Amino acid sequence: MSENPEIVGNAETSKSPDESRGQTPEVWMSRAIRLARQGWYTCDPNPRVGCVLVKEGVLVGEGYHARAGEAHAEINALRAAGEAARGATAYVTLEPCSHTGRTGPCSVALAEAGIARVVAAMEDPNPQVSGRGFARLREAGVEVEVGLLEAEARTLNPGFIRRMRDGLPRVTLKMAMSLDGRTAMASGESQWITGPAARQQVQRLRASSSAILTGVESIIFDDSRLTVRAGQLGLDDGESIARRQPLRVVLDSHLRLPLAAACLSEPGRTLVLTLESPDSPRWRKLEKAGASVVAMPANAQGRVAFDAVLRYLATEESCNEVLVETGATLAGALLEADCVDQLELFVAPTLLGSEARPLFALPGLATMSEQRRLVIDDIRALGDDWLISARPRPTS
Amino acid sequence: MSENPEIVGNAETSKSPDESRGQTPEVWMSRAIRLARQGWYTCDPNPRVGCVLVKEGVLVGEGYHARAGEAHAEINALRAAGEAARGATAYVTLEPCSHTGRTGPCSVALAEAGIARVVAAMEDPNPQVSGRGFARLREAGVEVEVGLLEAEARTLNPGFIRRMRDGLPRVTLKMAMSLDGRTAMASGESQWITGPAARQQVQRLRASSSAILTGVESIIFDDSRLTVRAGQLGLDDGESIARRQPLRVVLDSHLRLPLAAACLSEPGRTLVLTLESPDSPRWRKLEKAGASVVAMPANAQGRVAFDAVLRYLATEESCNEVLVETGATLAGALLEADCVDQLELFVAPTLLGSEARPLFALPGLATMSEQRRLVIDDIRALGDDWLISARPRPTS
Repeated sequence: MSENPEIVGNAETSKSPDESRGQTPEVWMSRAIRLARQGWYTCDPNPRVGCVLVKEGVLVGEGYHARAGEAHAEINALRAAGEAARGATAYVTLEPCSHTGRTGPCSVALAEAGIARVVAAMEDPNPQVSGRGFARLREAGVEVEVGLLEAEARTLNPGFIRRMRDGLPRVTLKMAMSLDGRTAMASGESQWITGPAARQQVQRLRASSSAILTGVESIIFDDSRLTVRAGQLGLDDGESIARRQPLRVVLDSHLRLPLAAACLSEPGRTLVLTLESPDSPRWRKLEKAGASVVAMPANAQGRVAFDAVLRYLATEESCNEVLVETGATLAGALLEADCVDQLELFVAPTLLGSEARPLFALPGLATMSEQRRLVIDDIRALGDDWLISARPRPTS
Repeated sequence: MSENPEIVGNAETSKSPDESRGQTPEVWMSRAIRLARQGWYTCDPNPRVGCVLVKEGVLVGEGYHARAGEAHAEINALRAAGEAARGATAYVTLEPCSHTGRTGPCSVALAEAGIARVVAAMEDPNPQVSGRGFARLREAGVEVEVGLLEAEARTLNPGFIRRMRDGLPRVTLKMAMSLDGRTAMASGESQWITGPAARQQVQRLRASSSAILTGVESIIFDDSRLTVRAGQLGLDDGESIARRQPLRVVLDSHLRLPLAAACLSEPGRTLVLTLESPDSPRWRKLEKAGASVVAMPANAQGRVAFDAVLRYLATEESCNEVLVETGATLAGALLEADCVDQLELFVAPTLLGSEARPLFALPGLATMSEQRRLVIDDIRALGDDWLISARPRPTS
């Protein structure tokens, strides 16, 4: 998925001009989508974007967005092409921005570089700005076309699109279970039930997330670090990826997080969301121990309200993708509250028996009509284990 | 899997002589294995066997064993070849028999037809007769070679091999569960949680089994018929396949099987295995209602002893493959007793919640060290559902 994100612009292509000449627009856009993926683990909270510049059927420059604060894909491609950009068509996976960032609005930069035509896979998903980039381009005399390979381009940024559209992050719930749907013995005894390939995939899920959310019980019981470990990603650019640590979010209604919790001394930030007020003596202590503490409203069950948490993470922390790693109780409550967009179930080939702990605490379900239907999108082998990717079935 | 089992011998092949001439021995044996599969659903309790006769690189006849009581594969191939069999090589998936069945020993028939060489994939798995067929052939001057594509040939007859070698059937446990490992709501409320493709596969599993075993509770609760329905197999020769109904076996310690149970009035036999004695008043009534009733010894838990059941089914009922369709209690007990060779888990994309009924009652497991490890051999999509094929991990 991720190649070297330091290489953000190329004037040359590995294909000879003869090979690339006369390619269809779909081929160029596919190439832009592949480029965008190179920012998969690193460009958060910005969208993953790729850009390919083509003149007279020949690729003259390309680029992608590698890291927030660095140049956008279009700028990298323009830099790579230099003067050759004049008169070229730009294939870009997302509407070029119209706002002034570190490198100025991309729409202006494309027009000023003499780009004749922009083919974009999709509009900006933010309803407040969508179409503005295209308008700027058209005003400057650049031809604009929208919608080529849109479905593919959308898969680059499901979380970003969700946040821009709904003001919420996309929530992925990761669980590890036995084949009979259990996560730990009745005593709570647990251990890695899945193997190295599954653990590597968990690391990649973490690395592609803006935040990792858990409940304080998980920290108290397991002292999880919730970090991305460069060496466990199985990727060439692991060190570079692990420079960005996802925000760690702990739901902790009554500030029970241990001051010595391992996650508090790891690189990156730990955010504690609580029902307590700032004059609670524990609040200051947790801040001293390294946490950011923020008060949240309570829900009807007297717990931290999920909807407020998710809205806070999207608006205040710019979280696109939130990965939930937790136990049956919080996982079940999130499912019941319809707060889960995606399930990643790691299945170990073992049986833990009928007294072992359930996958999801969903105590409310009594009749078959209340069952929660899912759609399974994919099942694949990971070493001896299997990964089931599913999502709640739309009720409409 | 199954083509028309009425066509049991072919003198002609769909390939022209030029195409088949000069094929390798592996190609001929593969063809014999494919032929054998045509008896998949019908030849029980006999093994699935295919035979191809080749002379000077040209196929001169072929056949398979379609149905117990009808001709063996070798005889069908010899009949198809006629005089052309003289001097040919016979590729056969199993050692030709040396006993006198309806058509005489195949080893003698091959020799008398002038077959020059026999290439067999495997020996007869019955230790009491294995090698005798080859010995007869060699005595008659026929050259013999053994072991070509043996591993592939063994997959034709896992149950038959098990029965011949160990005096036990191969036991496949079929369960249908939700993604969180549940089979029904706490109330017992249940319904087909899987879709039509999964149900078709269950029908095929039944059709390829010698017997279907269940507990009396399942009959009392669901009144299951446990039959193969021709129209639900999704196979062209469904009617022919459904002519053989697998033996229905009900474990019924205290003869609680309802006299009006649907399975008692279906085509085929229902065998009730009990701890009661023949002078129990219920015994005679069940026999009158259509059941065969047989007394079994009890195990330490005061239930019908599984090992005695399986040995009885192998020796007295010639069962190769036993399919278990039952609830969590009997399924868990069979697993605990190490009586399960294969698990076929149909997984529906739904969550039934933590109060729903567990997949397996395995109450004895308290620590992770007691977990029952499995090997998952395959996971595949069946419509919206998935089928997980697994087996207990060998403990050695």
